[in-house]
Amino acid sequence: MSQKLGKASMRPEHPVYILNSASVVGTKEGQGPLGLLFDKVGEEDMFGCETWEDAESTLQKDAVGLALNKAGINPEDISFILAGDLLGQSIATSFGISSYQIPLLGVYGACSTCGESLILGAMSIAGGFADKVVCVTSSHFASAEKEFRFPLEYGNQRPLSATWTVTGSGAFILSGESAAGKGKPRACITGMTVGKIVDYGLKDSMNMGACMAPAAASTLEAHFTDFGCQPDQYDKIITGDLGKVGQRVLIDLLRDKGYDISEQHMDCGIEIFDADSQDTHAGGSGCGCSAVTLSAYILKQLEENNWKKVLFMPTGALLSKTSFNEGKSVPGIAHGLVIEAL
Amino acid sequence: MSQKLGKASMRPEHPVYILNSASVVGTKEGQGPLGLLFDKVGEEDMFGCETWEDAESTLQKDAVGLALNKAGINPEDISFILAGDLLGQSIATSFGISSYQIPLLGVYGACSTCGESLILGAMSIAGGFADKVVCVTSSHFASAEKEFRFPLEYGNQRPLSATWTVTGSGAFILSGESAAGKGKPRACITGMTVGKIVDYGLKDSMNMGACMAPAAASTLEAHFTDFGCQPDQYDKIITGDLGKVGQRVLIDLLRDKGYDISEQHMDCGIEIFDADSQDTHAGGSGCGCSAVTLSAYILKQLEENNWKKVLFMPTGALLSKTSFNEGKSVPGIAHGLVIEAL
Repeated sequence: MSQKLGKASMRPEHPVYILNSASVVGTKEGQGPLGLLFDKVGEEDMFGCETWEDAESTLQKDAVGLALNKAGINPEDISFILAGDLLGQSIATSFGISSYQIPLLGVYGACSTCGESLILGAMSIAGGFADKVVCVTSSHFASAEKEFRFPLEYGNQRPLSATWTVTGSGAFILSGESAAGKGKPRACITGMTVGKIVDYGLKDSMNMGACMAPAAASTLEAHFTDFGCQPDQYDKIITGDLGKVGQRVLIDLLRDKGYDISEQHMDCGIEIFDADSQDTHAGGSGCGCSAVTLSAYILKQLEENNWKKVLFMPTGALLSKTSFNEGKSVPGIAHGLVIEAL
Repeated sequence: MSQKLGKASMRPEHPVYILNSASVVGTKEGQGPLGLLFDKVGEEDMFGCETWEDAESTLQKDAVGLALNKAGINPEDISFILAGDLLGQSIATSFGISSYQIPLLGVYGACSTCGESLILGAMSIAGGFADKVVCVTSSHFASAEKEFRFPLEYGNQRPLSATWTVTGSGAFILSGESAAGKGKPRACITGMTVGKIVDYGLKDSMNMGACMAPAAASTLEAHFTDFGCQPDQYDKIITGDLGKVGQRVLIDLLRDKGYDISEQHMDCGIEIFDADSQDTHAGGSGCGCSAVTLSAYILKQLEENNWKKVLFMPTGALLSKTSFNEGKSVPGIAHGLVIEAL
């Protein structure tokens, strides 16, 4: 039986189990609405390191370690790790996970990387290429500001459309066997849709929600077509980090395509911070935003059967400081996964 | 039947065909020993663009277009594209391939990215998740020097251990059906080994061959163990861009592990330039180096039955200018593929 579905979607023959997962976040995320749900909240955002990049590496290392520990699985039992982050040449990953000595496949999809790593991880399990894989992604507010925008010391003003990069890392252990880990799996992956680059020509790196929303709309439309489904078949349709501006754009764009997702839509970036009291403007963003929200909040709702089936779709803005400063646009991309309660 | 083999290897149940491929290179590569074999040699290294980054994007766009054309396949018949490059946030890819409107999975493994994309591409085909995929990677001498080292205008001196980043892009079209394209497939992929990060603590970004050789040795040892094979079962064991220094280190390290590969070893970086007349020191490097050599030279040898079976193993140095300037080491990674004549 083919595992391919429609043009850009896949339905694994057997569900892929999320055996366990972990989330590690910084202080600001710990003070936010989801603060009590994270596995670990740092005491300070340097995590005992000397550079922001090392701090982000530590986030990944801790998230993977915690997830393995919670699942009762040793690093040597993992076939490979699919990992990525936002920094140039993915250095948070290279220096974060090397000590586990697990074979690595590095991935990059900007803030959609969590979705991409889970899609490729689920493919490796469902295709019979691996028994267990780890998917991990991270971002750090300070390393991201340094990488993409201005030095923090500059005290740059942020427009209201700007998002705040989440300091956090989420790690997930996937397997085709529901009894492979300690206890019961948290949920399972039953479908995937790979997104394409969508570029509306926007050039504002301080309004990434608007840059990414067209890609989210494109992937959602492809998903509904490929699976022959409607928005109301999901308890939640969850984007990664569109924030408040991008959410409005997405809902409007989809309405034009004949889909109303206003009832089901949720955005990890809107959930993770309290914009009023935390001064985070449009919401949270970054590779870590969707990853820690999936681990701490979304999987918990599925475990508690508050939700039965969600579409989890991290969104990414494909820019670098080089392309931005050379006057290029900020194209978007989004990858979707169907995640179901057991 | 499981497609997993040993700890970190995979053997697809059915061979994955390389339907066709294309290579596009810069002027220096065109003047090198393989010059006449490339599909397209640029007239000048800007490829008609205004920035080095755009020039690299053009390389990817042209390589994908040529490969599709040679295979007689339309972009809309491709399930997804696995692509990457060396620039921060993989912008050569984002701006190079977006016009094809093919769903994208971005990958990053430094100069090993060609191997990683082919492994994940072969997995998606062999797992039944896609009918046809494109794998493309690129590098450009000038965009890489700017990204990793010094401005070209600075006229920095290069030690003899340094390698010269190849300006080039190689694209490959994979399918499970040998009759899917125009004409006969070029070769097939019958095995894969995913490598892990190996860090000997070296910090010299001007001697990347030595930084990567330990990773190449590690992946080779894992490969020989997982497949229960010996070096002499391959006509060639081909690394990506170790150059002359890395080659010596690799052969010595493997001799210590009980394997003699001195007869079979070949390095794309050594083949692509004539070090004496082209002033390229230890050899060529970059994501594009192994990709264009595979397309133009290695697949040709397999097509002509000069070789029956090779192990193709691109090697990557996991550094960024940030990690390098913060005093971090340069860890290595290498991914291997068994490629056979039809």
